[in-house]
Amino acid sequence: MKIYDISMEIREGMPVYKDKEEKKFKFVVTGTLENGANESKLEIGSHTGTHADAYFHMLEKGKKMEEMDINKFIGECIVLDFSNNKDKITVKDFNNTISNKAKNNEKNTMKNKKKDKIIKKNDIVLLKTMAKPLKEFDKNYIYLDMGGAEFLARKKVKCVGIDNLSIERNQPEHETHKTLFNKDIPIIEGLELSKIKPGRYFFVGLPLKVKGGDGSPIRAVLVEK
Amino acid sequence: MKIYDISMEIREGMPVYKDKEEKKFKFVVTGTLENGANESKLEIGSHTGTHADAYFHMLEKGKKMEEMDINKFIGECIVLDFSNNKDKITVKDFNNTISNKAKNNEKNTMKNKKKDKIIKKNDIVLLKTMAKPLKEFDKNYIYLDMGGAEFLARKKVKCVGIDNLSIERNQPEHETHKTLFNKDIPIIEGLELSKIKPGRYFFVGLPLKVKGGDGSPIRAVLVEK
Repeated sequence: MKIYDISMEIREGMPVYKDKEEKKFKFVVTGTLENGANESKLEIGSHTGTHADAYFHMLEKGKKMEEMDINKFIGECIVLDFSNNKDKITVKDFNNTISNKAKNNEKNTMKNKKKDKIIKKNDIVLLKTMAKPLKEFDKNYIYLDMGGAEFLARKKVKCVGIDNLSIERNQPEHETHKTLFNKDIPIIEGLELSKIKPGRYFFVGLPLKVKGGDGSPIRAVLVEK
Repeated sequence: MKIYDISMEIREGMPVYKDKEEKKFKFVVTGTLENGANESKLEIGSHTGTHADAYFHMLEKGKKMEEMDINKFIGECIVLDFSNNKDKITVKDFNNTISNKAKNNEKNTMKNKKKDKIIKKNDIVLLKTMAKPLKEFDKNYIYLDMGGAEFLARKKVKCVGIDNLSIERNQPEHETHKTLFNKDIPIIEGLELSKIKPGRYFFVGLPLKVKGGDGSPIRAVLVEK
């Protein structure tokens, strides 16, 4: 079983969304071997590093973390590469990806009716936008627009992940988040996909069971199929 | 795919080891929908709730969390029930369990040479000691003694988990932890196994990739085989 770790390292000074103070990680040593054991306290934003969002993050009556269906965070997965995009990922990009894949994989024999099957119902869809690990927060990151989110919702995917620290950008109404959340599709952000080839995997990235939680750091992995 | 959540809920007031102040969980609201999104900061002990230990927890030169092999926290698993024990789990208990299972499962036909095969090499072994969820810290919890740890190390198991908040009790030299850690076997503590039947499952419980970390809260699940 070959496992790929697709999680950011959690450390003081790690990049956080918009460099916000309250999202910065703090590691507090609370015990040492001299007094028994090495122990620590972790002070971490609920959306710091690789993390999952609960619907409550953006929806007033949305599920909180302890209410989220754990099945959403484990299962069949497809990684799509948009690292050559300049600004955003739109519904057109998904169509392009699917068409190109069809051409490459099945030597132009794939029919239109088959195109849609590359992203499958219940897939966990991971969007790769960076060819290198995130070193510092870059406000011009590639995001998923509302049309792209609607496309994935129509596909009835199970969960959507991205390597950037947010799946949306400059959206005061948070339409990308809300489009997915309203269709019972959670979002994972801050993945480390730079070394991952596009293709199909098995994904695991389970959020901590935080009562009332709006989000949670996760350890995420891909298992090679 | 039937998934059982075997994680404690993380909330303020949750039971923590010896009721220590520095282990208590604190949930700090840092954002609300009025100012954009519901967000929070989690202040959590590295050994609070369901959690994994890095070898550095007890060994001066032991691996820290970001250095631990992620494969140790995912794989084939056996849950053994010791909830009728009074004080501790010893090597004798493992032998009893194995014999009883042999009797029940194979109608007295199992030979001695087969007995050992119930706990398999590379198993993640989960020790159930409580028939009810943990409500408050109880200092007389059932622990695994050094002989039991040595037995599991001889079996070359992959990882050992327990439902109590520590796998040892009253051991100033931490011999249960050290016996396992020195054999490259990590420990998971604080599992919620009260509703889980003994038997074989697939386990996932991945620690956060905390640089320099001695431990990490996890979300742990069993997948029914």
